Amino acid sequence: MSKALTRRIKELEEEWGKLRSELKERSQAGEDSELTSNPSTHENTDSKPDVNTSSCKKGKKVAKERPFDFSAHPRRHVALRLAYLGWSYQGFAVQDNTDNTVEARLFEALLKTRLIQDRQSSNYHRCGRTDKGVSAFSQVITIDLRSTQFCGGLGISVPEHVDVSIKNKATGSEVPYVKMLNRVLPQDIRILDWSPAAEGFSARFDCKSRTYRYYFPRGSLDVTLMAEAAKRYEGTHDFRNLCKMDVGNGVLQFERTILSASVKPVQPQDISSTGPYDVFIFEIKGLAFLYHQVRCMMALLLLIGQKLEDPELIDKLMDVQSNPRKPQYSMAVDYPLVLHDCHFQGLAWEQDIEEVSHVLSELQQHWTQSTVRSHVLHGMIQGLGAAGGVSSNACCLVEGSKQRNYRPLLERPCCESLESRINHFVKRGRLEREEGENGGETVHRGKKSKHSHSSPSLPVSSEMSSPKQSTDEKAED
Amino acid sequence: MSKALTRRIKELEEEWGKLRSELKERSQAGEDSELTSNPSTHENTDSKPDVNTSSCKKGKKVAKERPFDFSAHPRRHVALRLAYLGWSYQGFAVQDNTDNTVEARLFEALLKTRLIQDRQSSNYHRCGRTDKGVSAFSQVITIDLRSTQFCGGLGISVPEHVDVSIKNKATGSEVPYVKMLNRVLPQDIRILDWSPAAEGFSARFDCKSRTYRYYFPRGSLDVTLMAEAAKRYEGTHDFRNLCKMDVGNGVLQFERTILSASVKPVQPQDISSTGPYDVFIFEIKGLAFLYHQVRCMMALLLLIGQKLEDPELIDKLMDVQSNPRKPQYSMAVDYPLVLHDCHFQGLAWEQDIEEVSHVLSELQQHWTQSTVRSHVLHGMIQGLGAAGGVSSNACCLVEGSKQRNYRPLLERPCCESLESRINHFVKRGRLEREEGENGGETVHRGKKSKHSHSSPSLPVSSEMSSPKQSTDEKAED
Repeated sequence: MSKALTRRIKELEEEWGKLRSELKERSQAGEDSELTSNPSTHENTDSKPDVNTSSCKKGKKVAKERPFDFSAHPRRHVALRLAYLGWSYQGFAVQDNTDNTVEARLFEALLKTRLIQDRQSSNYHRCGRTDKGVSAFSQVITIDLRSTQFCGGLGISVPEHVDVSIKNKATGSEVPYVKMLNRVLPQDIRILDWSPAAEGFSARFDCKSRTYRYYFPRGSLDVTLMAEAAKRYEGTHDFRNLCKMDVGNGVLQFERTILSASVKPVQPQDISSTGPYDVFIFEIKGLAFLYHQVRCMMALLLLIGQKLEDPELIDKLMDVQSNPRKPQYSMAVDYPLVLHDCHFQGLAWEQDIEEVSHVLSELQQHWTQSTVRSHVLHGMIQGLGAAGGVSSNACCLVEGSKQRNYRPLLERPCCESLESRINHFVKRGRLEREEGENGGETVHRGKKSKHSHSSPSLPVSSEMSSPKQSTDEKAED
Repeated sequence: MSKALTRRIKELEEEWGKLRSELKERSQAGEDSELTSNPSTHENTDSKPDVNTSSCKKGKKVAKERPFDFSAHPRRHVALRLAYLGWSYQGFAVQDNTDNTVEARLFEALLKTRLIQDRQSSNYHRCGRTDKGVSAFSQVITIDLRSTQFCGGLGISVPEHVDVSIKNKATGSEVPYVKMLNRVLPQDIRILDWSPAAEGFSARFDCKSRTYRYYFPRGSLDVTLMAEAAKRYEGTHDFRNLCKMDVGNGVLQFERTILSASVKPVQPQDISSTGPYDVFIFEIKGLAFLYHQVRCMMALLLLIGQKLEDPELIDKLMDVQSNPRKPQYSMAVDYPLVLHDCHFQGLAWEQDIEEVSHVLSELQQHWTQSTVRSHVLHGMIQGLGAAGGVSSNACCLVEGSKQRNYRPLLERPCCESLESRINHFVKRGRLEREEGENGGETVHRGKKSKHSHSSPSLPVSSEMSSPKQSTDEKAED
């Protein structure tokens, strides 16, 4: 093992050395002023640093920054639709302990292209958060971007002190948001299209529903049983036992509505096809989701598919009267999960066919690499199988199901109940209980909570009518 | 771009820092003596270093090495069959400028398990070399390994001064070569089985034939045309225009025999199936191959499949009288290529079903990850296609075919001819010409060549009868 570490260090050192040199060359070239904290002054974001820098290197200072005057430009409220491969990132949302998030890359791009001045003033909302390793085909954000439309329009605010003649002049087309951003974003994050949005339209609060997909190979799973089990998720249920409760952040009620849940093959196959290498999708559409909810739902389906549990388990876990506490079980792994769609009304997506085609080509190249590798592996698997090898057929998408002595979920130790968690935070002042009318009780964020000014006040007792499903900030998977 | 570099450096620095600490901890633990150049004294290669090292850290010195006495053990000549995924390596063969090769890992494992004393005395031959990025399902090597068989046997040499009583004692089973090596090899290199071999049996010289596979998606390729074109490769032909000539290393004649060449779908599909995402295999079996030969052959097939060239191109390029010099064209990329089989006579592979099953499970897990990712990508491709995206359908497995103005191969500039290359090396003394009988001429390695003592002497003129196909040291792809 240490040998491998030593080797890795050597590789890193070499790589590190090369990167240092490359970085030195570029900064000496003077073309790239990104080492300063000011946004680039280069209007044309396509310019490549000139590597023939003999004249540049000799004492050329970095050009003095001319701050960009955002107040001179119109701004408009827009929705942007993103697709990203989450496998190389630590999640969508910006985090304290790492720079490696999709949002971080997104805001770098928005700043570099000077479409926003800074995050704080950009009126940014996101439809959902995806976790580390989770991808998205339709992540939607709303934000205010720089615009060319001095003539005004939907969601557009024009600067006050602009010359009337400029306002009345025929305005050209809008800033090519999609093209500009895709040029500076990393290849695994892409803007698919954009839409004008009315002022106040929010990706977070105006999202009508969200659809997730979870891809998995059949292996030795009973996919018919899984499909039947999945149907049980449809409807409105309390999902506290099928998520990671986030009471500390004010998520206090766990009823959610699932509009549809299905398990289907990716390609319509022969009904009689039973190949272990066929791939299926668990697709689920809901109004809003709790933290890790989809992966917990998938974990149960995988246990059911392996015949380690019955489909009735689902109904039992959603029966929080009988089962108020969640048994300990692992959720399904992250990489097969995709936020496939976020549905809105009132948006008109403006697609640039050229851009879409470009993204399509990139995806196809990536797919080619991935698929060829799969087939190389498959060829070897076939060869070993022919040689008499027997696979364990264990499902590797959920931890714990490979153990020799499988322990049924309902016999396992349980996690803390919701009540217990609430008490925990009440003690710390982050939640506060209040006597309500009729002897009922409400709980809301306390003064010590960082969101105490906007605390939803929710009844704790389940006999109370369920309030409108909050669009949980840390809700998504 | 620099921002990305700076970020990467930070990541590397963090990673580097962690690795340094981890490495320090382990060496202080004293369990792992690999930092010294002596092989480990630990008999049990399964032992894990003890991480609770409070007693160990306090001044414990690394245990004094007891050198292992190889001369006290029998040795036996064996063949080992390996499978490896070449994607993370700089090729199979050990190189001067990098430690990151399959062979380097293999020899580390052989030394660590004390199956050999050192490479030089191990009588090591390999069937072929695979290049950077190329994988193998059946790479075969022959080597002398430590044995328990004091009673002797096929290919076994017993130490001379061994007590007669030990010799006559019933010997147990042989050292479990496959299991031992797989425990210390990285996961992407696996010994599949081993075979006793007669003294003198060579993986390199006794290989009867080799089979390669190249995996590729249909895209917009005319696979029927490619299959027809592939057949033209069968037979004995001069492949100098379909390889990278390696004259400097003594490869002077380029006739090779292809036993079979085909293009087929990985899964027997409907004949009428025309999906661009169907995957095909170019499978080719030959006695021996030249350097990069298979990838050049594949490159031509891909050009033919794109209708950029006719199948007749193949016959023309193999007609070295008419086309003595190779036109400039890129070979196909590396990652889809697999050395699928090496055929021998006189070997009896001893398979450990448990080991094979273990490898099978590992491959299945890897396949699951790879395939799920492919399907995530495919789902996005489908979504964009439905949105009106049009893919370029360019073939991304060969460089240069995407250019707007495709230049037919036979109209392109050519590389140096064989004659010209020979002259080049004759001038430098690495090759020497000699007058032969009947006015013919032979060329062989000169005194300045590092292999001059074993130089094959070959006629240069193509009218001379073709000698036995040399098993080129740097022959394989």
